[in-house]
Amino acid sequence: MDGLTPRSVDQSKWYQEVVLKTELADYSPVKGCIVFRPYGYRIWELMQQQMDKMIKDAGVQNAYFPMLIPFSYLKKEAEHVEGFAPQVAVVTEAAGKKLEEPLVLRPTSETIIYSMFAKWIHSYRDLPLKLNQWANIVRWEMRTLPFLRTTEFLWQEGHTIHADKESATEEVMRALKMYEDFDKNCLSIYTIPGRKTESEKFPGAEFTYSVEAMMRDGKALQYGTSHLLSQKFAKSFEIQFSDKDGALQYPWMTSWGVSTRMIGGVIMAHGDDKGLVLPPMIAPIQVIVVPIFKTDADKKKIENFVKDKLADQLEDVRYEVDWSENTPGWKFSQWEMKGVPIRLEVGAKEIESGELTFCKRNTGEKGNVKVGVLEERIEKLLEQVQYEIYKSHKEFTEENTFEARDFNEFKKLIAEKKGFIKVAFKDNKDSEDMIKYETKATARNIPIASDAERGKCFFSGEEDAPTTIFARSY
Amino acid sequence: MDGLTPRSVDQSKWYQEVVLKTELADYSPVKGCIVFRPYGYRIWELMQQQMDKMIKDAGVQNAYFPMLIPFSYLKKEAEHVEGFAPQVAVVTEAAGKKLEEPLVLRPTSETIIYSMFAKWIHSYRDLPLKLNQWANIVRWEMRTLPFLRTTEFLWQEGHTIHADKESATEEVMRALKMYEDFDKNCLSIYTIPGRKTESEKFPGAEFTYSVEAMMRDGKALQYGTSHLLSQKFAKSFEIQFSDKDGALQYPWMTSWGVSTRMIGGVIMAHGDDKGLVLPPMIAPIQVIVVPIFKTDADKKKIENFVKDKLADQLEDVRYEVDWSENTPGWKFSQWEMKGVPIRLEVGAKEIESGELTFCKRNTGEKGNVKVGVLEERIEKLLEQVQYEIYKSHKEFTEENTFEARDFNEFKKLIAEKKGFIKVAFKDNKDSEDMIKYETKATARNIPIASDAERGKCFFSGEEDAPTTIFARSY
Repeated sequence: MDGLTPRSVDQSKWYQEVVLKTELADYSPVKGCIVFRPYGYRIWELMQQQMDKMIKDAGVQNAYFPMLIPFSYLKKEAEHVEGFAPQVAVVTEAAGKKLEEPLVLRPTSETIIYSMFAKWIHSYRDLPLKLNQWANIVRWEMRTLPFLRTTEFLWQEGHTIHADKESATEEVMRALKMYEDFDKNCLSIYTIPGRKTESEKFPGAEFTYSVEAMMRDGKALQYGTSHLLSQKFAKSFEIQFSDKDGALQYPWMTSWGVSTRMIGGVIMAHGDDKGLVLPPMIAPIQVIVVPIFKTDADKKKIENFVKDKLADQLEDVRYEVDWSENTPGWKFSQWEMKGVPIRLEVGAKEIESGELTFCKRNTGEKGNVKVGVLEERIEKLLEQVQYEIYKSHKEFTEENTFEARDFNEFKKLIAEKKGFIKVAFKDNKDSEDMIKYETKATARNIPIASDAERGKCFFSGEEDAPTTIFARSY
Repeated sequence: MDGLTPRSVDQSKWYQEVVLKTELADYSPVKGCIVFRPYGYRIWELMQQQMDKMIKDAGVQNAYFPMLIPFSYLKKEAEHVEGFAPQVAVVTEAAGKKLEEPLVLRPTSETIIYSMFAKWIHSYRDLPLKLNQWANIVRWEMRTLPFLRTTEFLWQEGHTIHADKESATEEVMRALKMYEDFDKNCLSIYTIPGRKTESEKFPGAEFTYSVEAMMRDGKALQYGTSHLLSQKFAKSFEIQFSDKDGALQYPWMTSWGVSTRMIGGVIMAHGDDKGLVLPPMIAPIQVIVVPIFKTDADKKKIENFVKDKLADQLEDVRYEVDWSENTPGWKFSQWEMKGVPIRLEVGAKEIESGELTFCKRNTGEKGNVKVGVLEERIEKLLEQVQYEIYKSHKEFTEENTFEARDFNEFKKLIAEKKGFIKVAFKDNKDSEDMIKYETKATARNIPIASDAERGKCFFSGEEDAPTTIFARSY
């Protein structure tokens, strides 16, 4: 195995090497599209399983809508088409003939779904209707990066329709909270939930909330979004329902989604010089058993030991035994690079003493565990690793979040410290454009936790400005 | 609820009404594409879960490859492009610009996957490699029918690469057997596994095996296919590996798949005049509890009874209680139409006697079950229904399978009896074309079970012809 460029030396090179060498993904012959290899796809499956359960538990049902959308549908909502038209791929021919109307590959599915809502929704009794779909999405991106920004990606998109603004807003906040919890409990990622500024919201939305996470280079990654789409789309798509008094009303819509970019985020939020650090909840292999032997007789002994003493106790975890012909040292590096949370070493010494040596990937900490209590110790260790990775990420985020009172201080912090800059900021597109032009930093969101705070805008000097987080971002 | 056109009166109308009225799917504004509504999509999820487990248990790993394929890739294998080019949808523009090379929406993924195999496979140590992907597929169809033939559909496609023909052939047969078992155990569908004739095989394959099922109108539905792709694609895509002696060899490929058309097959193989009949293994709701009451006080009693006595016992099944304001009679018809395997009735009488009335959807058979043993009885009943639906389908298939010694007899059977016609047939494209022209029947497959049989060809009179099944098909 070739070594890895240390993250501390060149994060961008490190990232691409990790993706390729751990076989998470590979570049495809189609510009900007990656192949999800089994190790990477398995992480997505584990994310999906856990998120899907949360979605279903919230009373949202899965469905599936066509990938091809008539171009005219996108155009029904002015802001929506303005936001997405520059990115769409267009099917103009099929079965050897030119199509009467070009079809776009879904860049998001509001319009095709709303054309069906118009057919299904008639009365207040039909509301709320809460659907979700797991699907592939195509957005033609100029600059791409595996997982983080690819022409085709995989995601879930929730789409709900409600009788009133209150119920729709509740759904927007429920989805946001679901993402925050998922990021924390499954991905060990600390995120900051908050509202997007006017210029950063979803094209066509009344407001957008996001969860934002800090990568180890201090840049932000938008980890998920949740939009209140208000009644605008209902009007464009002529969706109306009769309320309890028989009067026709426009319903309120929400949409919310997370994508395979979360995999890129896990790599960049937790990884270190040795490679991936995977939280146990989404690790394809949670425990790697490395047998250490010199002779065939020793190997045989370990085989029997694994079969008789370990297999039962490891039944409930995703584990593998590395019987390959490589040296133990090579195996250690290999599985460290692949981010496996726990390594167990089994050799003659361990068989004799009945105590295995374990090593935690996230801290490198080693210890011993008696074979008889392996099952419960491994369970505890995995919980511990899951928590420690989160704690470390939260601390890192807090240590790299700074406050600036004016634009000079802001520029200095962005250049020298990187990370998140907390400021009082009066929401204004021109200001954001200028800040971005000078510093490459953009408004990430207005944190919910700071909702009550008001101050003097660091850029314009206006009073009564809410707290906003700025950062460079992926 | 409006009634359903009885299947016995007009199967085609019945089919479309069942699909729409049970809310399995709806027509979309995009020609030939349907919307999978929650009830229909849930059936697909249940199929996926069970099939995915079988795939993983066979040592096949999931991955995901780009949906967009350069048109030139399709052209690398002559028969392959000839088979698929007439059906592809083509992306010619993206982000407002004409693409340098048109990209097709995958009609199947051999070519894009093989371009990656060429990158990954070097040595015999890399073989076999067994991958599967769950994906959406686009084939531009002239005549479409919900689930059975749609422009976009969902499927799984397995793609494996092997060092020798023997190992590849084993995989082809393993996948076929997996489909046969899945159809039997999960879908209660009796299928006939066999080899496709030369003209019906997959474009580019050395041979294709299929499982074929009989619908209730006697037509055949191809339920799944498994192909030996031989070394042809390896040569087109320049995939070579060095064997144990260091010599360069071309590997052998297989591919195999099943799709959402299976949902259409379940509707048409098991449905009756009242609507859907769903096998318990894929039924979104396995048990529907219908409360029967007149007063609010009675309703309250039933609510408590359900909570205290039923909920625990039904924990392990997918059940719902229909508390809607409709009459019990309306509810019975509704849930019968939706194909729910078991109905449980709960009224004052049942609460008093501690015995519930159940009704099996597939036979209409009613009976009583003591509350105390509900859990085990329901489990047994579900197993029984699953088996009975299979048995009924198998018997129907056998009763409607006929033998013909010559073409006159064949024509008479096809016209009068419908169903499958078993004949001795010498594989020949011209003969198949003529048979199809005169009778609309095509060769379905050469059943494995009849492998040893040889006879005089019913069409050409040639000797030594293997047994072949012909039928009209979807």
